Order: sequence, then C-alpha cells, then structure tokens
Amino acid sequence: MSTNLNTKELVEVFDTTLRDGMQVEGVSATVEDKLRIAEQLNHLGVHFIEGGWPGANPKDVEFFERAVKELRLDASTLVAFGSTRRPKGKVDDDATLKNLIDANTSAVCIVAKSWDYHVTEALQTSLDEGVAMVADSVGFLAGHGRRVLVDAEHFFDGYKRNPEFALRVLEAAVMKGASHLVLCDTNGGSLPHEVGATVEAVIKHLGSDVTIGIHCHDDTGCAVANSMAAVLAGARHVQGTLNGLGERTGNTNLTTVIPNLQLKMGFECLPEGHLERITAVSHHVAEVLNRPLNPQAPYVGASAFAHKAGLHVSAIARAKDAYEHVDPETVGNGTRFVVSEMAGKATIKMKADELGIDLDGPAINGVIDDLKRLENEGYHFEAADASLELLMRRATGWEQDFFRVESMRVITDETGDAPFTTEATVKVWTGNKREVHTAEGNGPVNAIDKALRASLQEKFPHLEKVHLTDFKVRILDGATATGAVTRVLIDATDGSRTWTTIGVSGNIIEASWRALEESLIFGLLHASQ
Amino acid sequence: MSTNLNTKELVEVFDTTLRDGMQVEGVSATVEDKLRIAEQLNHLGVHFIEGGWPGANPKDVEFFERAVKELRLDASTLVAFGSTRRPKGKVDDDATLKNLIDANTSAVCIVAKSWDYHVTEALQTSLDEGVAMVADSVGFLAGHGRRVLVDAEHFFDGYKRNPEFALRVLEAAVMKGASHLVLCDTNGGSLPHEVGATVEAVIKHLGSDVTIGIHCHDDTGCAVANSMAAVLAGARHVQGTLNGLGERTGNTNLTTVIPNLQLKMGFECLPEGHLERITAVSHHVAEVLNRPLNPQAPYVGASAFAHKAGLHVSAIARAKDAYEHVDPETVGNGTRFVVSEMAGKATIKMKADELGIDLDGPAINGVIDDLKRLENEGYHFEAADASLELLMRRATGWEQDFFRVESMRVITDETGDAPFTTEATVKVWTGNKREVHTAEGNGPVNAIDKALRASLQEKFPHLEKVHLTDFKVRILDGATATGAVTRVLIDATDGSRTWTTIGVSGNIIEASWRALEESLIFGLLHASQ
Repeated sequence: MSTNLNTKELVEVFDTTLRDGMQVEGVSATVEDKLRIAEQLNHLGVHFIEGGWPGANPKDVEFFERAVKELRLDASTLVAFGSTRRPKGKVDDDATLKNLIDANTSAVCIVAKSWDYHVTEALQTSLDEGVAMVADSVGFLAGHGRRVLVDAEHFFDGYKRNPEFALRVLEAAVMKGASHLVLCDTNGGSLPHEVGATVEAVIKHLGSDVTIGIHCHDDTGCAVANSMAAVLAGARHVQGTLNGLGERTGNTNLTTVIPNLQLKMGFECLPEGHLERITAVSHHVAEVLNRPLNPQAPYVGASAFAHKAGLHVSAIARAKDAYEHVDPETVGNGTRFVVSEMAGKATIKMKADELGIDLDGPAINGVIDDLKRLENEGYHFEAADASLELLMRRATGWEQDFFRVESMRVITDETGDAPFTTEATVKVWTGNKREVHTAEGNGPVNAIDKALRASLQEKFPHLEKVHLTDFKVRILDGATATGAVTRVLIDATDGSRTWTTIGVSGNIIEASWRALEESLIFGLLHASQ
Repeated sequence: MSTNLNTKELVEVFDTTLRDGMQVEGVSATVEDKLRIAEQLNHLGVHFIEGGWPGANPKDVEFFERAVKELRLDASTLVAFGSTRRPKGKVDDDATLKNLIDANTSAVCIVAKSWDYHVTEALQTSLDEGVAMVADSVGFLAGHGRRVLVDAEHFFDGYKRNPEFALRVLEAAVMKGASHLVLCDTNGGSLPHEVGATVEAVIKHLGSDVTIGIHCHDDTGCAVANSMAAVLAGARHVQGTLNGLGERTGNTNLTTVIPNLQLKMGFECLPEGHLERITAVSHHVAEVLNRPLNPQAPYVGASAFAHKAGLHVSAIARAKDAYEHVDPETVGNGTRFVVSEMAGKATIKMKADELGIDLDGPAINGVIDDLKRLENEGYHFEAADASLELLMRRATGWEQDFFRVESMRVITDETGDAPFTTEATVKVWTGNKREVHTAEGNGPVNAIDKALRASLQEKFPHLEKVHLTDFKVRILDGATATGAVTRVLIDATDGSRTWTTIGVSGNIIEASWRALEESLIFGLLHASQ
C-alpha cells in the first residue's frame, strides 16, 4: 500500500502566493508585506518564489526592484510572471516581455493558452498564431538568458477538447528552450483520476527531458489530491500558495501538499530540517496579510492535532501514532488537549502541567466541578484558553489583586435623528487608589474598555501593548430570544502572545464585561511574570 | 478521461453533522439547533441523518426523544450512534446498546474497532473477544429489528498492519446482519491511491452483498478525494458533514463531495432537483451554529464563482463553461463579479412580484442602489426577508406611520456584588399621543423591547401576538475588535407568519434597536393588511 521510495526523489515547490494568491477576495498586500512574505518563503526553503506580474500591476514593478536589491534569497529563485507576446505582435517591441526582462530575475514564468477555444475566442486569433506566440516568447526570453517556465493555461480542459493543439503548445515551448511545462487546471474543475491520466499521457508523449509541473485550483476540493495524482504520474514540480490563498476557492495549499509529499510519499520538497518551519511560516503569513488562518487547516491549523474526548488522553500519551497520523513536531505543530465538560482528570492534569500550574487532587476535582457548572451555564472553555488558565489558577487559591471594581454603568441613548451615543463610567480601586473615569465609545463594550483602561493605565502602563483583536457574540438557546443567554468571546494580544477569554450572562453587557475584565487580568498577569 | 456512466447509479449520503460534526472545536449546539439542522438535512434529501450518541451525551437523549416525536422526515432516515458492547460484557445488560434501542430509530450505527492495536491496547482484550463484541452487538441490534450500519474504526490503519483481523471484524458484522460496512479513516492520514486500493481489496474479499461505505477525515486535505477514490473502487455510501464540520481538520465535506459525485461522476446522491438546495442549506446551518461559512468553500462559498473585475464579463456571459467548471445554478449558487457588485434587475423584479409590490423601473434602480450601499455597510438581506420587503416598500414611497420614536435611552449598571440591572426608557408618538415608558430587562434588547411594547400596546393590541423567537449577533470585522461593525438578526412570529429583520451598526445597541423596530413595524404592517 505504501508508496515510500527508497531514494528521496525531488519534487520542486513553486510558490505563487505573491502572484496568484493575491487574487483572493479581501486581501490587498503592500510591497512591504510582499517582501516580508518572500523572506518567509525563502526561510521555508521553496525552490521558486513567483513575485508578481510586473507591468500588469505597478506595485509589482516596485516589488521586483526592491526584491532584487534588498532580499538575500539563499534557498529560493525569484520568478517574474507574465504572458506571451500579443497576437500578430513582435517580441522585440512587446511591452509584457520587456517588463519581464526589466524585472531582472534569473527565471520567468509565462502563461500560454493551451485550450483552443481561448485562442480563437478570447484572443481572436488562429491556432497556428497561438502556437507561434508561445514559441516566439519562450525563444526571446531564453535568448535573454532567462530560465523560462511555461504555465499551460486551461491545460486539462483544453486537452479534453483538443489534445492535439494542447500538445502542440507544449512541444513549441520545449523546442524553444522552456525548462518547465506547468499544466494548469485553471478553472479548477478536474478530479484526481483525470489529472493523473492526463499527466501520464503528456509525459508519455513528450519524454522526460523537460520537467512537468502541476498548478491546481480547489474548485472541487481536490487541489491537493490533484497535485499528488500528477506527481504519482511523473510531475516533479508543484505550484501552490501558502494557506491556499487564491481566486475563488484558492490554489493548491502548499502547507498541505508539502507535508503529504514529504512525510507520506517519500519525496524531498524542502531542504533537510526545514519542514518543521511550515507551521510558523503559515501563521506568520496569515498575520502579515491580517487574514486568520483556518484552525481546521491540515498540519498547520490550531485544531489539526487537537484531541477532544477526555477518555483518550492517557491512551494518546501512551501511543501517539495510534491516534495521530503524523508526529505534529515534524511540521512544527503540537498535540493539544482540548478541555471541555467531558474532560477527565488526566486531561486537566496535563493541561495544568502544560501551563506550569501545580494542581493537587482536590484542586483538580474543584476544576472539574467548576467546568461542569460553568459549561452548564453556557461557558465553553475549549475556545477560551485564558479564562481556563485563570480558572485553574483560582483553584489553587490565587486571586487577582491588580484592581477591584466598585461599580460600572453604561448608557446608550438616541434623540430624534441624532446619532446614538454611548458612554461608560467605571469606578475602580488599584491598591488604595480610587479611579473614576468616563469614556465614550461607539458601543457599550468599546466605551467600557476605554473607561477601564483609563482607570488602569497609570498603574499598569504595560496595558498599552494589550489590544483586543476580535469580539464574538453568540446567543445561546434562541428559544427565549432577547431573554436568552449570551456568550461573548474576546481575543486579545500583547504583540507576542494571544489569548481568548469568555463571559456568559443573560445580559449581553454583563457577558461582555466579564470577558473584557478577564482579558485585561490575563494580560496583566503575564506582563508581571 | 470522463467517467460519466450511462445509468445513474446511487451513492447513499450519510450525514454525521449532528454527531461527528459536533466534535469541531468551538461549536456547541443546543437540542433546538440540532432539530433545526435535521430539518435542513431532510430538506436537502440525504439518505441518513446521524443524530448523536444517546447515553454518551444527555443532550442527545433529549434530541432523539424530540426528533422521533416532532420531526417529519420524508427523505431521510434518522440514525442513532453508539458502540459495541463492553469487553467480556453481555449484550442484554449493556447500557450503550440499551440506549441505542431506547433511541427508537429504525437504523443504528455502531463503531467497531478494526485495528488490532486498539483492541489489545485501548480495550485491553483479545482479538477474538474484539470480533465477538462486534458480532454479538450487531446480532442483538438486528434482533431488535434495527437496520445496523457498522463503522469500522481505524480501518485503513488497521488493514495496513493486520489485514486479517480487520477483515474478520467486517465478516463478523456481515454474518450477523449488518446492512453497511463503513470503512473509517479515523486518524485521517490516508491518501487517495491508498484508499482506492484498500476498498478494492475489501470488496474483492467480501463480495457485493453488503454496501461498503467510506468515512474520512481531512488531515491530509484529501477527505473529499479519498471518498471519491473509494466510490471509484466500488463504495456506494459516503459519510460526511455539512461544511466539513468535525474534529481536528474536519470530516469529508458533503457540500463538496455531493456535487463532485453528482455533477462530475454521474452518480445520484440526492433526489432529483435537490442539489440546487445545497448552497442555501450550507449557509443556513452555518447560521444556526453561528459559524461563518468559509467564502472559499467549493460550490457553496460566496467566492466559489466570483470573478475578478479584470475578467471580461461579456466573455464569461458568452461562454460560461469556458470560465466556470460547473454552472453555479446547479448547486444554487451564482456567478458573482467582484467589485462591480450587481444584484440584477430581474431578480429584484421577481422578488417584488412575489411580495405583491409594484415596482417601476426607477424604483427598481433605487432598490438596487440601496442594496449596494447597505450590503457594503454590512447588511445581508438574503437572511432578512422582512427587512428586504420594507426596503422595497419604501422604494415605492411608502413610509410607516404606526409610531415615531422621539428618543430612547438604555442604562446598564452594576455596583459591588449586586447583580447587573438594565433599564430602558423610550419616548414614542402614536399619532398625536406621546407615550413615555421605562422598563427593566435582563439585557438592553429585552429592556428596549419591553419599553417599546408598553408604549404601543394600547393603540396596537395585536402586538401581543408578536413574539421575538430568535436573536443573532455577528461581529463583522474582527480586525478592529470592539470598534467593529455588528450585525443583528431578529426572528419574530405572530403565530401564523414568521419573519426576520436586520440591523447593522458600529454600536451593538443601535444595531439591535434597528432590527427590533423593523420587526415590530413588519408585524404591525401585516396585522393591518
């Protein structure tokens, strides 16, 4: 069943996060962002970094200028992307090709239309001219000393309709010196068995003098599987993006396909010892783009190695490979035991050890009782690590002495067509000092947060570093509508650490207040340690 | 290349959103939520709905009691999940098996250990006893008239290590009357070519008298591809969850695998004409669980058929299948052109006709402009039918004259250890009469609702029949935390009709107030008609 090979064969990784990945909805990266991501990709050790399309995008011209000058890439080759020359045009005065040369990279990747329909309809030209555009452009770029990769656009759809034309495009590219032929499933509709069969046929037809690559999109949820099917059929170059960024459903997720190829299929994709960097790089890039990583992401997600059912914990500790498909440390992730109402003593003990809290038997029972009672009220500690930690610390007798709240009040009002206003007043003791502050906010939580911070900032200047990054509200048990219980989760960060707290109450303001208070306590606790 | 068959063969869909799906981190559904989801699954037309594990979870006992009584499932069979009897135990006094019988469903699914290691280590018993546990339990349940499906846990890992034992477990289950053998990739580490080869071997060994099923997890990003590989090898029953909910990286996403099997591989999974419901059902379930749907989700995601502005809109319109891998309407989704967001005049006109509102050309344009502006602010009218109707009526010049709000104010305060209190005061004109009322509530929305009703009840006694039935809050842009935009949805009913309204604001109180006001206006409008 296993396909492990005895010698590690190389599968090149071509990252297009900075070009195709930027097509994802809702993301817009600055040149600075892109430079930082390129550094991360080099740190990970991918073979190629496609940086953008100089000319089509003015930002990308600046990116290449700076990247070539500023970046020290020791593992990766920078690639500029473009298209073939215009129909009926000449290579010597083609703006796109000129921009590619001007980008000053050693390698370039050009898109070539390999579906006859797109040549005759989108380009409105003949199939012969379609082939000539590819041949001329590859020849021109190779003549300028560039290594030329060719992205055969819509290859799988084109090959189904007119295999002869699709293969003619590839042949022309090889003859003019292309180093790579990358077969693209541009519309993303192919399935693994189809991709495997087509790649096999192409390799049979072309022989093995040129590297065959694969470029997939996830429209059938099979981008990763399609890429692996291509590799099984002989492709040795995989294109994709970090975290599956990309248009529509995204490109092949490199953070999934690289571990699959390397850990399960015996190929070498990254330099020795680099695979364990992949989780950190994935999170770093998500951070740069301000686009939260899917916790369910294979290998790198926060939930990828999270175990829930309490009864299994001791068994997992005894034989990890009976419960985890790979060792999480191979990809720089870790096993995580999620604590919920179903947690047993062993889980609580392990969690406490992980946090460096010394819990004895009675304290563990106390924690279990608290969890049961609170989860019954609507608390949900799985998602609120910081509140869980505070609960465990309290079970050891600890109490926070940073501040004591005497009272709080929040008023929202509206008169006629004037906008809503909200103000909060808090009266707080920090040690023996009484602080009374009122603040306006664009909502009750914002106003309370401001007033509370105003009260604490003198004594705890560290709080300036603590920011709330997310705020989630869930109404539990819709049956009683506005009389229902509200659960509020607040995410916060101090720049190096991030944490989540929870508040539950029939009153949404109280629930928010509880979560906010805990969030600041946690921030203060870890600043003072 | 194509695998389309001439006759449509059936692949059964077994949904385990309500059992395995609930293992996803951060989701905790109420019994009410689960009943609503079961209705959606039946509406979609899956063959089996696995409702939970009665006994292991007290909420699931209540679910089955209510589901069997209250739900009218015309397409789906409800399934209770459990395990085999305890080692060395007897079936007659086994609590798990008793709970399964008590759940009163016509079909049950039990998990059977098929990896020798888990029998000897986790269960601490012999392999013979492992087989006997399966045989006895299947026999017992079948003897009670239940259709018995067997989930062969860790099957793929077990088969790799000890194929003889793994097959013995399957054989025992078949001999005692199991209708289905479901091969589970419990740790999720398998790849498509491995799954295909193993399923083929199993079917060769067992013959075709029993239905072979497949149950995958997405730890290699291949749950969908693995399921299809199993079907290509002869499996005819696919288990999964809506939106890929599930522990760690999630289960096979049914919203991806169903369209793949049906549109691309020629199988029948859902009743004729039901596939186009899948996008709405997917979004509905995400909404019930307050767990935003991944916009990149294949087929059902908001970005799945989104085209960037650069693409030629007219070219796509001319030849959609050159740019889209399937027609989005087959799955109830739609082509979307990003940036130039267009609602479509025809759609608006159809909706207005449906509501009996006469919209002329300029009014339709007005509605489209309003929709664009408001959706940009965070409104989402798909989920708020009543607010959409009010918006359309306003485009015809209509304005509500039931009441006019002069001002409102809501105060929440807390002193020391006293409980939080909230009171609202509203000043409202009904015709020429000024009403001023203050009410306490267990939260701001509840207090405002009470005060507003107190002001209106004399003139509109009908309002007594109007009840708010659900209240949902979503924070739209996590990036600015408490400064983010809040979207509130309120469901209401007057006993015969139910409706949903929406409010959006940076201030959660204002958003709630807007949704509440609209909800009462809609109730009054339809009472007076």
